[in-house]
Amino acid sequence: MEEVFVAGAAMTRFGKHLERSPRELVEEAVAAALQDAGMEAREVGAVYVGNAVAGLMSGQESIRGQVVLRRTGLMGIPIVNVENACASSSTALHLGWQAIAAGMQDCVLVVGYEKLYDPDRQRSYRAFNASMDLEEMRTRFPEAGATRSVFMDLYASFAGPESEGPAADVEALGMVSVKNHHHGALNPLAQFREEVTLEQVLASRPIAGPLTLLMCSPLSDGAAALVLMAHPRNRSRVRIAASVLTSGRGDDRSRPNAAVRAVGAAYERAGIGPEDLDVVELHDATSIAELQLYEELGLCGKGEAARLILDRVTWLGGQLPVNPSGGLLARGHPIGATGAAQVVELAWQLQGRCGPRQVPEAKVALAQNGGGWVGTDAAACAVHVLIT
Amino acid sequence: MEEVFVAGAAMTRFGKHLERSPRELVEEAVAAALQDAGMEAREVGAVYVGNAVAGLMSGQESIRGQVVLRRTGLMGIPIVNVENACASSSTALHLGWQAIAAGMQDCVLVVGYEKLYDPDRQRSYRAFNASMDLEEMRTRFPEAGATRSVFMDLYASFAGPESEGPAADVEALGMVSVKNHHHGALNPLAQFREEVTLEQVLASRPIAGPLTLLMCSPLSDGAAALVLMAHPRNRSRVRIAASVLTSGRGDDRSRPNAAVRAVGAAYERAGIGPEDLDVVELHDATSIAELQLYEELGLCGKGEAARLILDRVTWLGGQLPVNPSGGLLARGHPIGATGAAQVVELAWQLQGRCGPRQVPEAKVALAQNGGGWVGTDAAACAVHVLIT
Repeated sequence: MEEVFVAGAAMTRFGKHLERSPRELVEEAVAAALQDAGMEAREVGAVYVGNAVAGLMSGQESIRGQVVLRRTGLMGIPIVNVENACASSSTALHLGWQAIAAGMQDCVLVVGYEKLYDPDRQRSYRAFNASMDLEEMRTRFPEAGATRSVFMDLYASFAGPESEGPAADVEALGMVSVKNHHHGALNPLAQFREEVTLEQVLASRPIAGPLTLLMCSPLSDGAAALVLMAHPRNRSRVRIAASVLTSGRGDDRSRPNAAVRAVGAAYERAGIGPEDLDVVELHDATSIAELQLYEELGLCGKGEAARLILDRVTWLGGQLPVNPSGGLLARGHPIGATGAAQVVELAWQLQGRCGPRQVPEAKVALAQNGGGWVGTDAAACAVHVLIT
Repeated sequence: MEEVFVAGAAMTRFGKHLERSPRELVEEAVAAALQDAGMEAREVGAVYVGNAVAGLMSGQESIRGQVVLRRTGLMGIPIVNVENACASSSTALHLGWQAIAAGMQDCVLVVGYEKLYDPDRQRSYRAFNASMDLEEMRTRFPEAGATRSVFMDLYASFAGPESEGPAADVEALGMVSVKNHHHGALNPLAQFREEVTLEQVLASRPIAGPLTLLMCSPLSDGAAALVLMAHPRNRSRVRIAASVLTSGRGDDRSRPNAAVRAVGAAYERAGIGPEDLDVVELHDATSIAELQLYEELGLCGKGEAARLILDRVTWLGGQLPVNPSGGLLARGHPIGATGAAQVVELAWQLQGRCGPRQVPEAKVALAQNGGGWVGTDAAACAVHVLIT
């Protein structure tokens, strides 16, 4: 199997780009990623494009990649359009990694993009909510959907009496948001660049259960792109040591969930454990998710997630910074772009390019990206381990 | 590189399944394909799911594969949702082939499905039409779209004075439909099982340019599934000798189109030429497409396509039967299922399981599946060569 390197990594600023088309966002990210890799479009062998909801947002249901890449000089090579809800571009990354690892391609491009803002906010929520089995959603959350993502109701349900997880500590939930906004304030590409206080987080508009507005990822637009190569021309030594994709357990609650299985396989394939990690980007769709994932990724033991955030272990300057980019909460969450953007951040961290949010001497990094919901679990989860 | 075999192949009948859900259609095809391979769900390592328009048809924009596979026992393994317009499930097949060929999986499932019928016919056309760059479509075909697929207008445009192709012969156009309906009449899984005469074809409702209703593929529902393995347990010796995916040339008319490039690469990788083929399934979205593809696939020289159909070379009983299943015109065209269904038919042909439509001693087969439109070319094209 060939080793796979991240030869180029780039993204647009995430945010509200009402005036920019998906094509413009993608062109910006792709051109910058190719430049970063020192490659030209004609040297790319295949493109894997992750997008989740362009069908419902713009009506461009099919050939989404070809439409946004039309002017990039990439037409003619295989273009694969991939969807896995919020894990769309990490799934695209997994396919790109597979093509290089298998020796079938020398250089591939991975693209994630989303336009989720719309003057009609209900359209955005409708698109977002289509990441759940719609039949199930209408039964479980009959009232929700028109004014917010039902995922917030879903996450809030983990905080109730049936909760298996660590979401009971409201201060910890709030501090996740404070941390990620603190990190986002240091990231020029983040959607939100202002610090928030615990008081502000707790006093912000209630969304669902204990979740307030500032504990929930926002609607965002943006694009991210990665150039993967077996033999990069530049000095990139950011190697993908593991790329694991799983689907959820569906209705079978007796099995470990998708994140636990994916991260277990990723540690094994990379030959590392959580104690080896220097920096993590994980899927903080809400503050609850970040706390749950601390335990599921093995960053702490059962019941210790609140301690990790309250003791500042996962803050920049702590022992294991999590979401130095600002995460979904502050960098933003343009669904189809998020998975690729996590890896952009980690590649930059391992290359020491992150300025005020740089994790010193980061050498081992992990990205976890979840997507959708079916029954008792995420519909998809992808975990990537990067090592330099 | 591992050899890749089609160990199991199955499909639902194509047609108007208003009363059946996508999940039911997929469950039927998947169960039958696994049974055909002598495999159980728990032995499958990954699933690649092709669907083009469920987002616009049902609102289930994301995690389409997980939703339809929820009850199959396949949850937990990687599920990749792929879209490439009408080439969605041949693109899924290409990814599945890649995973086995690379030695990364021992057994994968490829699924294609579509529900295109809707009591609101305009919804079906809107979904279908989203396989073109929407911006371009609104400019080129401002009037069309509400009452038919704009692809029919697109194909009709190839028959005009600017045509480079063989679409001028109305009798030949009509006879493609007569042939494919003749084949469909022999296929119990075809949507249309009645013979039609040339007079009926020419007298049917005008759609666009020279195209009448019977020269255009219908709206269809259906599902198809393939089990791919490196070491099949059953006696399948249907080997995938080439799997090639290309995207279109976009706006650069100077380059060969996607079909020409894909088939050229497929012949080279399989070590064969068109003269070696015993049976072909190709993308007859309209009669014009079938005639164009005769030339593009090298089945005849420039200007000889009409002869192939009028001399019955491509009929069952002729030298090189094309679309023995009935093709898109008569077997039907549930967009996301078509590419997989073509390969189901060819696997069955190579296994001698096709009864009255069997091509005697078929050993070398080719499937060509196109999808979408951008600028001057299809958005995607996949070609598979099967050899027994």
